[in-house]
Amino acid sequence: MALDSLVDLLDLEQIEVNIFRGRSPSDWRQRVFGGQVAGQALVAAGRTVPADRPVHSLHAYFIRPGDPAVPIVYTVDRVRDGRSFTTRRVSAIQHGKTIFTLSASFHHPEPGAQHAVAMPAVPPADTISRPEHEFFASNPIDLRFVGPARDDPAGLRVAGTEHNLVWLRANGDLPDDPLLHVCLMTYASDLTLLDSVLRRHGLSWADGQTSGASLDHAMWFHRPFRADHWLLYDQESPTAAGARGLARGQVFTEEGELVVSVVQEGLVRTVT
Amino acid sequence: MALDSLVDLLDLEQIEVNIFRGRSPSDWRQRVFGGQVAGQALVAAGRTVPADRPVHSLHAYFIRPGDPAVPIVYTVDRVRDGRSFTTRRVSAIQHGKTIFTLSASFHHPEPGAQHAVAMPAVPPADTISRPEHEFFASNPIDLRFVGPARDDPAGLRVAGTEHNLVWLRANGDLPDDPLLHVCLMTYASDLTLLDSVLRRHGLSWADGQTSGASLDHAMWFHRPFRADHWLLYDQESPTAAGARGLARGQVFTEEGELVVSVVQEGLVRTVT
Repeated sequence: MALDSLVDLLDLEQIEVNIFRGRSPSDWRQRVFGGQVAGQALVAAGRTVPADRPVHSLHAYFIRPGDPAVPIVYTVDRVRDGRSFTTRRVSAIQHGKTIFTLSASFHHPEPGAQHAVAMPAVPPADTISRPEHEFFASNPIDLRFVGPARDDPAGLRVAGTEHNLVWLRANGDLPDDPLLHVCLMTYASDLTLLDSVLRRHGLSWADGQTSGASLDHAMWFHRPFRADHWLLYDQESPTAAGARGLARGQVFTEEGELVVSVVQEGLVRTVT
Repeated sequence: MALDSLVDLLDLEQIEVNIFRGRSPSDWRQRVFGGQVAGQALVAAGRTVPADRPVHSLHAYFIRPGDPAVPIVYTVDRVRDGRSFTTRRVSAIQHGKTIFTLSASFHHPEPGAQHAVAMPAVPPADTISRPEHEFFASNPIDLRFVGPARDDPAGLRVAGTEHNLVWLRANGDLPDDPLLHVCLMTYASDLTLLDSVLRRHGLSWADGQTSGASLDHAMWFHRPFRADHWLLYDQESPTAAGARGLARGQVFTEEGELVVSVVQEGLVRTVT
């Protein structure tokens, strides 16, 4: 899928004041990609909030697999329009059933104390080649695996940890609308995150014995960023148990600024 | 408040199949403590799910301050009862308005890959005395500050980081109901978490210049635990910006097993 097509998918059709409709790509596989539903749901929420109040967090559950053959309808509940914060709750519906729910909060930044963890030391994105597999060549997100790499087993590893480091950016230029950049990052954040759980156990979605799904998704947007500039996605898994693994991600700009935090739990089943 | 009173607060009155009512302590301050609302909402959700399917995650937003003078009504939306997972959405209502929303997911653990981060090395809970301040002496949760301590400026600090380490447990024995233990930990998880943001900047809720509130709350329950046994709550803040700070927590048993992960964003305003 080209970047233009993804930007089109994120441009939802407005059915009513609080009801939106989104499509899935025609060439998509058995179930809709979770990052697409999360990105579209955040577009729906964001369209009901003034542009001077950007999103600062979202919390979502994947409830049923999405059917790529029919549109997804997003209904927005305007939970609160407060003095400082705006809250929205979105339900994604197909065939009369809720397939996904998302809550999001919006806040115009105020002055306050600032701090942030440092970006890990990694080679620049441009020094790493794009994987040759067709999935990556045709992806609207340009992914460069720093390491432990998919293609380079000698890839850099952050000392003492099991971090999975990926540079990513939209595969082309984007218009300036900040909501679009946030929604593209939401889409991209679901592409590689659960790999950090699998890697700990030498598993892969392609090994014929591993299956699973994203269960939830939470993001915090700390500072503004552009999704068409390089972003380092530092991912790790603190734990797995009971067939569920937790993954955490931190997103840094090329200048080393922490802009997004992500947490996701995934179901990981293995047949042995 | 004694532990018995907190256990009573968590024993909600059932108004209808999907509607519950909870009280706040009579001696409570201006607004209801967030951990109480989160704990009660999780009780409401859990009461609608079979006991053999324990909660594994929750995502919540604090939307309006709770009024301690009137009861809180919790309505439960049975989003899905699936083959493997059950999803619930709870709204907490006062004066006709939503003050809090929570989504929670339930899953009977399955066999699968296991790993976990190690517990930091800290002195045992029993070697640390309880703070003398009245708030701690009368709290239903017994808190022992490992460090950087509230009362002991020489408190242990994990090398190279700004972790805020607290031992905690219910101040007395609890019945065996696993949902009660999880809901007590939910209550306790909101007591000290945002301190890790404030500490980074030498701020305190009691310094007369700092105000704020919990904005959201997410928890993942990885493994079973008892809330009346010692639990180490390892808390840190990766970032703050725009008057919002993010805090993360990991909860370990005395045996070093990671049982819960927590993430919360808080509003932190300072008058200078």
